[in-house]
Amino acid sequence: MNSTLINIKPELICAQNRITLILNNLIDNQINTDDKLKSAAKYSLLNGGKRLRPLLVYLTGKMLNANDNDLDIAAGAIECIHSYSLVHDDLPAMDDDNLRRGKPTCHIKFDEATAILAGDALQTLAFESLASHQFIGIDHKQQISLISTLAQASGLTGMCGGQSLDLSATDKLITLEQLEHIHNLKTGALLRCAIKLGALCSPNCTSDILDKLDCFGKAIGLAFQVQDDILDIEADTQTLGKPQGSDVASNKSTYPALLGLQGAKNKARQLYLDALKALEHINADTSELEALATYIIERDH
Amino acid sequence: MNSTLINIKPELICAQNRITLILNNLIDNQINTDDKLKSAAKYSLLNGGKRLRPLLVYLTGKMLNANDNDLDIAAGAIECIHSYSLVHDDLPAMDDDNLRRGKPTCHIKFDEATAILAGDALQTLAFESLASHQFIGIDHKQQISLISTLAQASGLTGMCGGQSLDLSATDKLITLEQLEHIHNLKTGALLRCAIKLGALCSPNCTSDILDKLDCFGKAIGLAFQVQDDILDIEADTQTLGKPQGSDVASNKSTYPALLGLQGAKNKARQLYLDALKALEHINADTSELEALATYIIERDH
Repeated sequence: MNSTLINIKPELICAQNRITLILNNLIDNQINTDDKLKSAAKYSLLNGGKRLRPLLVYLTGKMLNANDNDLDIAAGAIECIHSYSLVHDDLPAMDDDNLRRGKPTCHIKFDEATAILAGDALQTLAFESLASHQFIGIDHKQQISLISTLAQASGLTGMCGGQSLDLSATDKLITLEQLEHIHNLKTGALLRCAIKLGALCSPNCTSDILDKLDCFGKAIGLAFQVQDDILDIEADTQTLGKPQGSDVASNKSTYPALLGLQGAKNKARQLYLDALKALEHINADTSELEALATYIIERDH
Repeated sequence: MNSTLINIKPELICAQNRITLILNNLIDNQINTDDKLKSAAKYSLLNGGKRLRPLLVYLTGKMLNANDNDLDIAAGAIECIHSYSLVHDDLPAMDDDNLRRGKPTCHIKFDEATAILAGDALQTLAFESLASHQFIGIDHKQQISLISTLAQASGLTGMCGGQSLDLSATDKLITLEQLEHIHNLKTGALLRCAIKLGALCSPNCTSDILDKLDCFGKAIGLAFQVQDDILDIEADTQTLGKPQGSDVASNKSTYPALLGLQGAKNKARQLYLDALKALEHINADTSELEALATYIIERDH
């Protein structure tokens, strides 16, 4: 376990630059459509972001010798899903946010109808790109697994279900167990999915590796959310790109609210250790995934 | 050409009953999720409707000897896409409709945030069901074609793009060519897709048959929209399930507005004849598709 020795930042920047090009091409290849909708989709897709999900796809896939171009498609698809979810979450009827990463949200920059449609089209684009690509390293059956895995993580039993639970929980007292269930669906499902997609791009992917990686994914997915809640209290607005304290202001249950700030920090630490433990059983060079786990609980935005 | 001798109504009712069961199962199989979101998705999916897209899948697939259970999945998937698009179209920021098929729209029955999420989840469900089903009659490559075909018809270059163009055209004078482009994307793309999905469920599907069926699909897709515009003027509110004259009231360009009522009727008739002509070159029993084309231009709601 040498995660503290590796700095994941260069890999992150590399993934960020690469995925920006991929997403740019993905949207530019959509021809003969409405310019306004395309601009809104592009604006939302290319509006910065940590690109954590693409990074997870790349790191996991490379660890298992997946083809780079295949990974680009999987990384692009999951970022389209993430991006659509942010566009819809920001809508007035949902979180009603005007700023995202320091820039006007899609419905502010364009209009509400366009933001709804841009989100819809970005979701479709995710599945279209996975289904239209000629994968080099894997067969058609595994390509279908990529699609079903992404869909399961995104829909009723994943991200959308979690978002709905989260909205219902606003202004209510909920238990730690309920909060964990919400986050496992709302953000955890897609982070875990990113790791699975990376693995599924590899011809060496087995159900055994998938299971072990999923334990890792589940731990860092939750750790990511706990750290998000901590940052909402500790970081300043400029670093976050959204108003500091916005979760508290909107009466959302958070880990610090339920466990206290130190309790939340302990929780994040425990999840980090769980994540590293899950990697011990994987027969591959897991050092970059370890470094990523470190980044997740040490990041400041 | 004996379309006038066949009554498509029994087939339509049969498809309606069958797809209701399929959609019901599809949504009930989504377990461990938010009850409210699931209820909203189910309400929208099972809120009646002509089920024209499933019928197109069934008729085309049966004509080419596709497996019934495979057709169920394709029919269910395209109806999920159609249903999600209606939920989002009805939102206050889009068409702002309170009634759909004589019942409260999803955001009226539930709330706006839930309607946005239910639409999102229904779109995901379409792709999830296509990717999760073990198809009996076709191989994995053709299964992937089903997914890419549905995605292409739904997204930026299909339905979403058309909806955005339609919103931009409200309150504007547009040409017949522009109106036709909008409808080819907004409603035509998914109707054509339904026919393609039916064919792609068959092991006998060739690119030649797909091309010929697509000519048929393009003609009936546009005929459907022209007839919709005619009905908006001629039918009463109770038969339509939405306020009569609502297109005119919302300043949308229509075929009768651009061509006059008789001109629009002539247009629908010509498209009907084009559709029948396209079927002449297909080496299969096309009588039910002919009857469907007749239904489309003779329907009163």
